[in-house]
Amino acid sequence: MKIKIKERLRTLADRQKPRAARLQCEMTSQTSLLLPTTIKISQVNSLTDEDFIIKFGNVIEHCSLVAAAVAKSRPFQSLQHLHAEICSFIDELPVKGREGILRSHPDLAGRAAMAGKLTQESRQEQECAGLGSLTEEERSNLNTMNKSYRQKFGFPFVICARLNKKEAILLGLRSRLHNSPEEELHTGIEEVKKIALLRLKILVSDDMGSKM
Amino acid sequence: MKIKIKERLRTLADRQKPRAARLQCEMTSQTSLLLPTTIKISQVNSLTDEDFIIKFGNVIEHCSLVAAAVAKSRPFQSLQHLHAEICSFIDELPVKGREGILRSHPDLAGRAAMAGKLTQESRQEQECAGLGSLTEEERSNLNTMNKSYRQKFGFPFVICARLNKKEAILLGLRSRLHNSPEEELHTGIEEVKKIALLRLKILVSDDMGSKM
Repeated sequence: MKIKIKERLRTLADRQKPRAARLQCEMTSQTSLLLPTTIKISQVNSLTDEDFIIKFGNVIEHCSLVAAAVAKSRPFQSLQHLHAEICSFIDELPVKGREGILRSHPDLAGRAAMAGKLTQESRQEQECAGLGSLTEEERSNLNTMNKSYRQKFGFPFVICARLNKKEAILLGLRSRLHNSPEEELHTGIEEVKKIALLRLKILVSDDMGSKM
Repeated sequence: MKIKIKERLRTLADRQKPRAARLQCEMTSQTSLLLPTTIKISQVNSLTDEDFIIKFGNVIEHCSLVAAAVAKSRPFQSLQHLHAEICSFIDELPVKGREGILRSHPDLAGRAAMAGKLTQESRQEQECAGLGSLTEEERSNLNTMNKSYRQKFGFPFVICARLNKKEAILLGLRSRLHNSPEEELHTGIEEVKKIALLRLKILVSDDMGSKM
């Protein structure tokens, strides 16, 4: 009997997921203060290197080396200061390193998403963009274009999903397919920086930054 | 009854661990061909980018960006060729990037080791060096010196544990504490490259390389 109740509760929880995801999108776009893992910049500055790398290890998807590289640039004055350090480190990387950052990102609504193997951050972002509710035709279009994009550029199409709805993502992918590899390396990395800023806003409160 | 048998088997398996670890050290130092996850360089060359990054993501501890960066340098002629590409990418990184690589490594017999949170690779390497059987005095010495090292250089002491026994590690740490930050960045990164070569030997067979 207990098991049945548990199952029922789990089913109810599953049904609530889309609403919970929507709520989190709304919360995150308004403010990061409501989320439980947010810490102040003064706390960021007093973390050990190891804890800093754990905390910010996925601000750049699957690239905790970036967090490890900027850990010693502390103290940071603000969330924006931390973000600027991350961006500046990325810009200093050789071309292969920046391509590697793009290559560390999953395809949108791709193999990892279908297998439930996205990082928590990516999953939430893709849900926000509505990529969890693609029609069969949209999914098929997206997969075909993702494949063409990877084939042409050698890295996946990266776009800040929290700032784009699925229609804009599909249009953006279709249009960016015509760019040169240099343009796409640049555009992809600028999108990575936008993603990083939004991920940082979930992790760090902006109190000192807003006073400056 | 079945549960009791399972428990007994588990206890026996636990007792075998040190011997199993020793055997694996010996096997790995002789040849990588005996280990089940070894693939040929031709197979490495035909992996998708995503699978390549998964396979080689921890050749540089916690720095899968390195694997992502060299994925497009395929086809590789040999294990040595792949290793050379990894080393060359690391050498091209800005100082902060190379410091970040060192900072991504755990302290030897440190907090992560004590909490059972090492990567599988690190755990096996530290076991090979005998760091799992430190005396109380050795552990205390190591911790004190690790702390001084981090404080002086801003990154942890990194040494190829598979090539050193615990006595050599303790002596090495004591001696390297007197070096300059530039010397230690260089020495630490050279150790990372040795670790990478040994990790690659577990993952890739050397058949094409040995014919060249």
